[in-house]
Amino acid sequence: MSDYVAPVREMRFVLDEIASLEALTGLPGYEDVAADLVDAILGEAGKFAANELAPMNRSGDLSGSRLENGVVYAPEGFKEAYSKFVEAGWCSVAFDPEYGGQGLPRAVSTAVSEMVAASNLSFSLCPMLTHGAVDLLIHHGTEAQKQTYLAKMISGEWSGTMNMTEPHAGSDVGALKTRAVPEGDHYRITGTKIFITWGEHEMADNIIHMVLARTPDAPPGSKGISCFIVPKYLVNADGSLGERNDLRCVSLEHKLGINASPTAVMSFGDSEGAIGYLIGEEYDGMHCMFTMMNMARLDVGLEGIAIADRAYQQALSYARERVQGRPVDGSRKDAVPIIQHPDVRHMLMTMKATTEAARALAYFTAAHLDIAERHSEEGQRRKSQGLVELLTPVVKAWATDIGVEMASIGVQVHGGMGFIEETGAAQHYRDARITPIYEGTNGIQALDLVGRKLTYDDGVHVRRLLDDMRATVGDLGSGSNGTSDLGDRLAAAVEDLAAATDWMIETRGAGAANDWAGGATDYLRMLGVTTGGYLMARAALAAERRLADGSSDREFLSAKIATARFYGDHVLPRAGALLGPVTRGAELLFAIEPEHMAN
Amino acid sequence: MSDYVAPVREMRFVLDEIASLEALTGLPGYEDVAADLVDAILGEAGKFAANELAPMNRSGDLSGSRLENGVVYAPEGFKEAYSKFVEAGWCSVAFDPEYGGQGLPRAVSTAVSEMVAASNLSFSLCPMLTHGAVDLLIHHGTEAQKQTYLAKMISGEWSGTMNMTEPHAGSDVGALKTRAVPEGDHYRITGTKIFITWGEHEMADNIIHMVLARTPDAPPGSKGISCFIVPKYLVNADGSLGERNDLRCVSLEHKLGINASPTAVMSFGDSEGAIGYLIGEEYDGMHCMFTMMNMARLDVGLEGIAIADRAYQQALSYARERVQGRPVDGSRKDAVPIIQHPDVRHMLMTMKATTEAARALAYFTAAHLDIAERHSEEGQRRKSQGLVELLTPVVKAWATDIGVEMASIGVQVHGGMGFIEETGAAQHYRDARITPIYEGTNGIQALDLVGRKLTYDDGVHVRRLLDDMRATVGDLGSGSNGTSDLGDRLAAAVEDLAAATDWMIETRGAGAANDWAGGATDYLRMLGVTTGGYLMARAALAAERRLADGSSDREFLSAKIATARFYGDHVLPRAGALLGPVTRGAELLFAIEPEHMAN
Repeated sequence: MSDYVAPVREMRFVLDEIASLEALTGLPGYEDVAADLVDAILGEAGKFAANELAPMNRSGDLSGSRLENGVVYAPEGFKEAYSKFVEAGWCSVAFDPEYGGQGLPRAVSTAVSEMVAASNLSFSLCPMLTHGAVDLLIHHGTEAQKQTYLAKMISGEWSGTMNMTEPHAGSDVGALKTRAVPEGDHYRITGTKIFITWGEHEMADNIIHMVLARTPDAPPGSKGISCFIVPKYLVNADGSLGERNDLRCVSLEHKLGINASPTAVMSFGDSEGAIGYLIGEEYDGMHCMFTMMNMARLDVGLEGIAIADRAYQQALSYARERVQGRPVDGSRKDAVPIIQHPDVRHMLMTMKATTEAARALAYFTAAHLDIAERHSEEGQRRKSQGLVELLTPVVKAWATDIGVEMASIGVQVHGGMGFIEETGAAQHYRDARITPIYEGTNGIQALDLVGRKLTYDDGVHVRRLLDDMRATVGDLGSGSNGTSDLGDRLAAAVEDLAAATDWMIETRGAGAANDWAGGATDYLRMLGVTTGGYLMARAALAAERRLADGSSDREFLSAKIATARFYGDHVLPRAGALLGPVTRGAELLFAIEPEHMAN
Repeated sequence: MSDYVAPVREMRFVLDEIASLEALTGLPGYEDVAADLVDAILGEAGKFAANELAPMNRSGDLSGSRLENGVVYAPEGFKEAYSKFVEAGWCSVAFDPEYGGQGLPRAVSTAVSEMVAASNLSFSLCPMLTHGAVDLLIHHGTEAQKQTYLAKMISGEWSGTMNMTEPHAGSDVGALKTRAVPEGDHYRITGTKIFITWGEHEMADNIIHMVLARTPDAPPGSKGISCFIVPKYLVNADGSLGERNDLRCVSLEHKLGINASPTAVMSFGDSEGAIGYLIGEEYDGMHCMFTMMNMARLDVGLEGIAIADRAYQQALSYARERVQGRPVDGSRKDAVPIIQHPDVRHMLMTMKATTEAARALAYFTAAHLDIAERHSEEGQRRKSQGLVELLTPVVKAWATDIGVEMASIGVQVHGGMGFIEETGAAQHYRDARITPIYEGTNGIQALDLVGRKLTYDDGVHVRRLLDDMRATVGDLGSGSNGTSDLGDRLAAAVEDLAAATDWMIETRGAGAANDWAGGATDYLRMLGVTTGGYLMARAALAAERRLADGSSDREFLSAKIATARFYGDHVLPRAGALLGPVTRGAELLFAIEPEHMAN
């Protein structure tokens, strides 16, 4: 029941048709990426995920990681699987060959990351955080720092962490108190960090902590924060491991889900102070961390998709096997698999359509990250960069919201068995719940979207996206197979989104902060649902083209068209329903004083 | 943080204004129910729930019930609390004084049940199931059976269970295989039942199992099912307890939530066959069980509301205490409680408004149950009975859907702390998830609503309800305080609901079963959201009236109006968005063959 099969055909289709893989492989640095290489990578990654990682998902949840005498032990099998993961090169897929990476497009590594997260979310967090730390080093590290850390981190021999949160500094990172006092070529770090995912473990030979702290004369708030490299083991000049640094895991959290991954309370500097090295400029810590977080936000959005897909696979499998009840249309006199019941089919189609839309959005965003980084024309780079910045909070928040919702539907498909832990559906429901919270809560994402990203250049990026959607509406009008219905639904959603966008940009400009902030989450959802519909429509058009061209993959392509149409009929209407809520303003939000909100 | 305060003022307001308590106390048999008696009962029940039950909610979740040598031990403190619960008379609130009950209206006992479920859902399931078994005995038992069991069950000294589900007979009860062979004045029962809530425990002196089984010559399917009383301990002629019956708990499930309540696998008749007594006529078992289930469905709907309210209270308390981040409108230079942030306020108002709407719907339905049972005029009884039958699946399914959704929002308000089990928010998210499943999955409720309830008398009950809603729209038009806006929103939702209703009744009549069944869940949600809006509007109008009459409770009444308006702006639009999905038909549901649904 807990089997995972990587949806390789679907992934490849989305890469080709939504991420425009062929164009990506024309970008400087990606010229060697051939189509069959991508197929080989997706196939092998799928096998690794299914054979090595998925089988430990439930056992890891049951046993959890444990802390004994300062040592954190991952669940049985994790260390061995991690070694194989490193050996097989799965850590390095996206990185620059200059530092030992495999130099594949982000869009392709995104598909690999989805498989890893879907097969074993807890496991995936270790390479995911390393990935973010590597990005930080690449963008902000000195040449010497890169030489010291990058190759080992890219290979995965060393893992990385992000140390931001403190008990009184969660979403408000600027309130943190960890201190960094200069001493020669390094700093001494003292403080406590919480919610540090894979903050301590024995799977990698070393752990490179990226730690936010304040230097002695730092101004208050986020402007006084600097970022430090704080390795678990100090690294000698020859690259060998030296002394244990003055940092330790003091406890692990007892969580709702992702139990196999240790969530550590880390104490830095209990004795003489942990040795840390400034990365980037002093007071530039937030900027550094945002590099790490932007990548991590895409990865966390992907986790929502991964869980939704895993939950879907499991629900589909159960619904095809579980025989219960006669068909409501009287077509059979005996009991049938529950997938034949309209309500169960409705749940499954909702999961399938929503998950595919969110996947399309994530891969689309990753493809524009590739273009933003590598395209030869600056204008195109800037366009794509603008789109990536606009859509990153949407991928993070919308895809994790739907991850929770789809995991919940997955439990429901199982009926009473869904509530029994052995079935495994409940684990997805528990695991999924962290994703709207970490790497910036979804509320923070919405503020980032509306408060910053939407209004760059007076909203040029969102308006360009709206125009692209309108062009697709035009294309649908001439479609067959009922995609013209999808065109009508998309047109309605796009114009409602355009109206909400106008209101948002105007209100943002007018400085009515509570009004725009109060509608920000609903606006983000509207943008997510509609962009998802736009990309599903493009997928349907591409499927029609392939069918017209005589593709032999008729079932898959016909299913894609039906799924896109289902999305248009059943999911897209959510967008229009949000136009009112987005634009109501904050009056009723603040109409009741907090002390009178209890009944 | 896990404190629970019963919302007594709100409950009393809903009882007065939505359940029309004054009219209920004019019904035959309720003449002695004075206003101050209701206040005393709500006050005392609230204290009991807060002081005795709420403190064991987390500890019970942590330890769970355990099975040792056939004996099930409830978590520490549960047995003592249950004794106090019985002594204080909380089991008997709703029942006929003829059998030792307190003879209070169902509407009032509904408020008490909400408090018990909110303070400790696992605990509440024991009296809840007993409640259902008592109803079954009252409606179908012989006088001798009533004399033997009723008084002890109404007092709570003995508890009751419902034994329907078997491994291959979940939603399809008719597939069950448990056998009942006649032997003198009783039957011998043999079979295995699963998912039996509080199926075995030591809190009560005896457990009266209501068991569905087949007699030897029974026809197949649900028409061949009979219902049996199968006590844990046989009862002697003098009412004392006799021998242990041949039934036992063979295992307990490891569940996602409600861990304090044992979910038992029960084995009947491992030796000579368990002794059971036929209740009602042979082959009338489903009819008997529906008596039990209809009551239980209202109670389970109430559990959704109870969890939503508990989650809201906890989130509100956290948001008022947790200081983090400066206001987005720049009104303060230092950090404020997060309740001052628009997005957090939005989440809290959504929880508050939705929970109040669902509560209004549940109490409204309970009040009509009182009228249906007791009104002196048959016409009025039939009207109310029709409304109860229409709304029971809506209360069950819509209120439990929102229970899950609100518990999830409650976790989100807590940020990272919400994912840590100690906080308690995660428990509500886990506990809530069973409620859309048990007592008939929400999909089954939707089939019941559209397949049976909606079309009684050609839809007269739903059309009468729509007319009542339209009258309230008219009343809102003349309101002040912005309730005319609420009128516009409600009018739109009501007309969309009316259109969906016409489509449903017509499609149901045309026999297009997959079409109506495929839209049934969305139709149920539409009916729930809109009826909730109608009742919130009535609550707002009542609050305006009281304010105009010079009530001193200005903050509460103003908050009620603001909450209703928020519901209109932010929740009601969900109804209109479902009109399309409800009426699309089943084409796209079945467009992809099951074997091609995987990617």
